[in-house]
Amino acid sequence: MIYDTTLRDGTQREGLSLTVQDKLRVAQLLDDLGVAYIEGGWPGSNPKDVEFFERAKTLGLKRARLAAFGATCRAGGGKPDDDANIRALLDAETPVVTVVGKTWTLHVTEVLQTTLEENLRIIRESLAYLKSRGREVIYDAEHFFDGYRADPAYALATLRAAFDGGADSISLCDTNGGAMPWQIEEIVNAVRAQFPTEPFGIHTHNDSECAVANSLAAARAGCTLVQGTVNGYGERCGNANLCAIIPDLELKLGFTCLPQGQLTRLTALAHAVAEIANLAPDDHMAYVGRSAFAHKGGIHVAAMRRNETSYQHVDPARVGNASRVVVSELSGRGNVLSKAEEFGVDVNNANTDVSAVLQRIKELEAQGFHFESAEASIELMLRRAQKDYRPLFEMIDFLVVVEKRQGRGLLAEANVKLRVGDEVVHVAAEGNGPVNALDTALRKALTPFYPALNAFHLADYKVRILDGSAGTAATTRVLIETANHVQRWSTVGASPNIIEASWLALCDSVEYGISVAGVK
Amino acid sequence: MIYDTTLRDGTQREGLSLTVQDKLRVAQLLDDLGVAYIEGGWPGSNPKDVEFFERAKTLGLKRARLAAFGATCRAGGGKPDDDANIRALLDAETPVVTVVGKTWTLHVTEVLQTTLEENLRIIRESLAYLKSRGREVIYDAEHFFDGYRADPAYALATLRAAFDGGADSISLCDTNGGAMPWQIEEIVNAVRAQFPTEPFGIHTHNDSECAVANSLAAARAGCTLVQGTVNGYGERCGNANLCAIIPDLELKLGFTCLPQGQLTRLTALAHAVAEIANLAPDDHMAYVGRSAFAHKGGIHVAAMRRNETSYQHVDPARVGNASRVVVSELSGRGNVLSKAEEFGVDVNNANTDVSAVLQRIKELEAQGFHFESAEASIELMLRRAQKDYRPLFEMIDFLVVVEKRQGRGLLAEANVKLRVGDEVVHVAAEGNGPVNALDTALRKALTPFYPALNAFHLADYKVRILDGSAGTAATTRVLIETANHVQRWSTVGASPNIIEASWLALCDSVEYGISVAGVK
Repeated sequence: MIYDTTLRDGTQREGLSLTVQDKLRVAQLLDDLGVAYIEGGWPGSNPKDVEFFERAKTLGLKRARLAAFGATCRAGGGKPDDDANIRALLDAETPVVTVVGKTWTLHVTEVLQTTLEENLRIIRESLAYLKSRGREVIYDAEHFFDGYRADPAYALATLRAAFDGGADSISLCDTNGGAMPWQIEEIVNAVRAQFPTEPFGIHTHNDSECAVANSLAAARAGCTLVQGTVNGYGERCGNANLCAIIPDLELKLGFTCLPQGQLTRLTALAHAVAEIANLAPDDHMAYVGRSAFAHKGGIHVAAMRRNETSYQHVDPARVGNASRVVVSELSGRGNVLSKAEEFGVDVNNANTDVSAVLQRIKELEAQGFHFESAEASIELMLRRAQKDYRPLFEMIDFLVVVEKRQGRGLLAEANVKLRVGDEVVHVAAEGNGPVNALDTALRKALTPFYPALNAFHLADYKVRILDGSAGTAATTRVLIETANHVQRWSTVGASPNIIEASWLALCDSVEYGISVAGVK
Repeated sequence: MIYDTTLRDGTQREGLSLTVQDKLRVAQLLDDLGVAYIEGGWPGSNPKDVEFFERAKTLGLKRARLAAFGATCRAGGGKPDDDANIRALLDAETPVVTVVGKTWTLHVTEVLQTTLEENLRIIRESLAYLKSRGREVIYDAEHFFDGYRADPAYALATLRAAFDGGADSISLCDTNGGAMPWQIEEIVNAVRAQFPTEPFGIHTHNDSECAVANSLAAARAGCTLVQGTVNGYGERCGNANLCAIIPDLELKLGFTCLPQGQLTRLTALAHAVAEIANLAPDDHMAYVGRSAFAHKGGIHVAAMRRNETSYQHVDPARVGNASRVVVSELSGRGNVLSKAEEFGVDVNNANTDVSAVLQRIKELEAQGFHFESAEASIELMLRRAQKDYRPLFEMIDFLVVVEKRQGRGLLAEANVKLRVGDEVVHVAAEGNGPVNALDTALRKALTPFYPALNAFHLADYKVRILDGSAGTAATTRVLIETANHVQRWSTVGASPNIIEASWLALCDSVEYGISVAGVK
C-alpha cells in the first residue's frame, strides 16, 4: 500500500508552497494514479489545511483514502477530548487519521519535557479516543530507528501503547534520515518478531541518500505500507521518493502497489506535480526524469539500435517514459500524428502539412515554448495548419503602461487594437497589473462578437523563467489555464518580454475557448 | 579507496560539458580532497582527453593516482600492441590504466558480435600487455551484475581472464543501474568466495535510485574500492554520488576514505565542481546541499535550540556544511534571533525592535512575500529596523511602457526617478522586456553614485504566481539572485503587479549589494 504524504511532509521542502487549489489538484492526480492513502495536511497546524479538508469532501476520490495528520494530545495530564489538535483532526472528517508520537527517550525528556510513562499514556489515550470516533488510525512512530538504537525496550513499549490504543497500523519513521538499509532491515525484523501479526509501514528521509533503499529493505522485511512523496519532495534532503519506490516495488520486487496498468501514468504524474509546485522537474530522476532513458554516447546508441535491453534496466514505456537519443532532438512525426488523433483533428488529408507543424513545434520549443503542458496550443497549431482555417481575430497593436508616481499609487493600463472580420476594434482597460489589464482589454474587445467569452475565467496563470542565469533578459514562459463551466484548457506563450509571452498565451486561450471548447 | 570518475563517466551527463581547463581544476580539487584515484578521461575516444592527460602531467598531484580509461583491444584476432585504443592509453602516460570489458553474454554476441572465447582472450591479452608496460591495471567488468544473473559461470570466467592477464583489481559494474542492494551483496559475496584474496571495487549507476546503497552494500561485502562521481553526475540518472558515499562510509560505516580532516572540505568541493560545470547545485542533496541541514517548522527549531542532535543525523560541520534556520510565516522569534546572529547583525540592543521585524515578516508573507529563499531581504529588514539606518536611495516615480505596433515590433522602455542624498536623478532606458528595462534604468541612475554596481550581475530571476486561480489578477512573487565576483544574494518582492514585485526585489538587490556585500 502506497501512502502519499506530498501534501503534508512534502510541503516542508524549502521553497515549496502549495495553495489549497494546488493541493486539491495534486490529490486528484494521486487518486487517478491509484495510491492507497493521501495524507492531505495537518489541520491542527494551519488554516490552509483546514480549508483543504473542507473542500476535499467534494473531490469524490475513487480509490485513495484521505488522511489528516496530527500529534498526540498534550503531555502533563492533557486529555484527547479536550485537545485542540485532536479536535482539528476529527473536524477534518477524513476516514483516516495519522497520529505522530515520540519513540526516542531523548525527545520525550528533552523536547516534550515529560516522563517516559506520560508519553506512553498520551499515545494510548489519543489513539483510543480517535478509534472510538470511528476513524482508521495510523500511528507514526517518530525517530523510531534512532529511538530503538538508544533504548529498544522503550521503543517497543511505545508501539505496544499504540496497539493497545487501537492503532490499525504503525509506520516506523526514520525522521532524521540517517539510518542505513541493513539497520532498517534488522530493526524491522526485530519489531516484527515482537508483533508478528500486526501491520507495519515505513517512512524514511533521504539524508544519507538511502531513503529509497531503506523503504525497499523495510518492504522486504515485511512492512506492507510505504510512505513517501512525489519526486521525493520534503524537508532538508527530502522524503523517500515514490516515483522510484513504486516502480522498484512493482518491477524489481514483484509487489503490486497500483491498480493494473496505472504505473504507466507515473511519469506524467511526476511532471504534473512539479508543474503545479512550480519547480523544475529533475531531468535525472530515476524512471521519470527526461534523461532517465536518454542515451548520449555513440557506442551506447549503436548498441541500443542492435538490442533495446542492452543499456536499459527496464522498458521505459512501463513507467510512461520513453528512451531518447541525445544530440538529435528528434521526437518525431509519430508524436504529432498521435496527438492529432487524440484531439480528433483529421490530418490524414492533403489539407494538412504535418511536417510543417512538426517543424513549427520544434522552432517554438527552441525559443522556449513547452507544449507538454499546453495541449490547447498544440491543437490550435494543428487546426491552423489546415488550409480552410480562418482566424477569429487579428492583433494589430497593443500598448501597456505601468506607472507608480509619488502620492498616486500604482496604475496599470492597456490599449488593444484588433481586427475582427472587417471591423477594427480599439479599446482600453485598467487592471491591477499589466497582464490583467491586457486580459481585460482583450475580452472587452471580443465579447461583443463572441458572447461565450463571458462564461470563461482564467483558472491559473504560471510563469517560468528559462535560463535564469540570463537574469531579467531571460526568456519567459507563460502557461495559462482557462475554464468555463464544463472544461479547462491550457495554452502557452514564450518571449524574452513577459508581456508578449502573456499576450500569446492569452490569445490562444481565447481562440481555443471560442472555436473549440465553445462548440464541443 | 575512492575512485573518482567525474571527468570520464560524469561528463556523460546530458547538459554537462567541461573544457580541458575545467577538467584540470576539478582534478586539482579532487586531489586536495584526497581521493585515491582520478579517472581523467578516455584518450582513445576524443582529442580533448588526450590534451587533458598531456597537461595533467604538470598538475603535481599530491595524493591521487591518475587513471586513463579505455576498452579492451578489438575482437576478431586483434592484438593489443597493434590497437589504437590501447596505444592511446599508454600515450596518456598515467600510472594507472582502467580497461573495460564485457561480462554479459548478450553483449559479447550481440554488441561485440564475437565469440565468448574470443572475448576472454582480448580481456586477458589487453591486460597482460598493459601490465608488461608497467602500469597499475584496473579492470572494469561492464554489466557485471546483469551478466552474472544471465550466466554466472561465464561472468566468473571473464574475471578469471582479467586476473590471469594481471589485473591489480577488478571493479564490478552495474552499468544499467538496475540492481538492488541485496542482489549486489549476494553477488559480491559469491564472487569473493571464488576469489577470496583478490581486491574488488564497485561501480554503480542510479537508475533505481539505489546507487549509494548499492555501493555501501558492496563495501560491506568486501569491495575495497568505490567508484563514483561528484554530485552523482553521469549518464541518464547519474553515477553513484561520492558526496553521499564518502560521508556514509566514514560517518556511518566507520571506514577511512580520505586523509584525516579532509571530509570537512566535501561541501565546498561539491559546490565548486557544480560551479565549474555551470550547473546549479542541488540544494536538497544529502550532506552537501544548502538545505541538507535546514530547519523550517517552528517546533523543530525550538527543539533544535534545546538539543542540536534531536533533528540532525550527523553534525553538519563534519562535512563542511552548516545548519540553517529557515525564516517563514511558521517562524517564531527564535528563528529571527538565530538569523540575526548568523548575519552578524547586533539586535540585542535597544536600537532594534525584533518583535516589529517578526511582525513585518508575517505581514509581508501574508501578502505573498516568501523570505525563506531571500535571505538578503531579511537581512535588510533587520538592518532597517536599527534606529541609525539610512536608505541609500529613495524611489520617487517609475513608468514602464511595453508596446507592439504592426510593422514596428516590440518595444519596452522604463523611466525611473530617484532621490540619492540631496540629488534627484531621472533616467530612461530600454530593455528586451519591461523588467529588463527597469533594471537597466535603475543601474543607470545609481552607478554614478555607487560604481560597485558595475561588478554586479543578475544571476537568476524567478517568478511565481500565488493563488493562480485568481488568474492574471493573482499576486506575483519575484525572487532575484544577484552576484558579484565573490558572492551571491537573493531578494524578494511581491505584488499583484509583476512590475512592482520585480521593482521591489531589484531595489533590495541593489541596496544589499552596495551596503552589505560591497563592504563584506
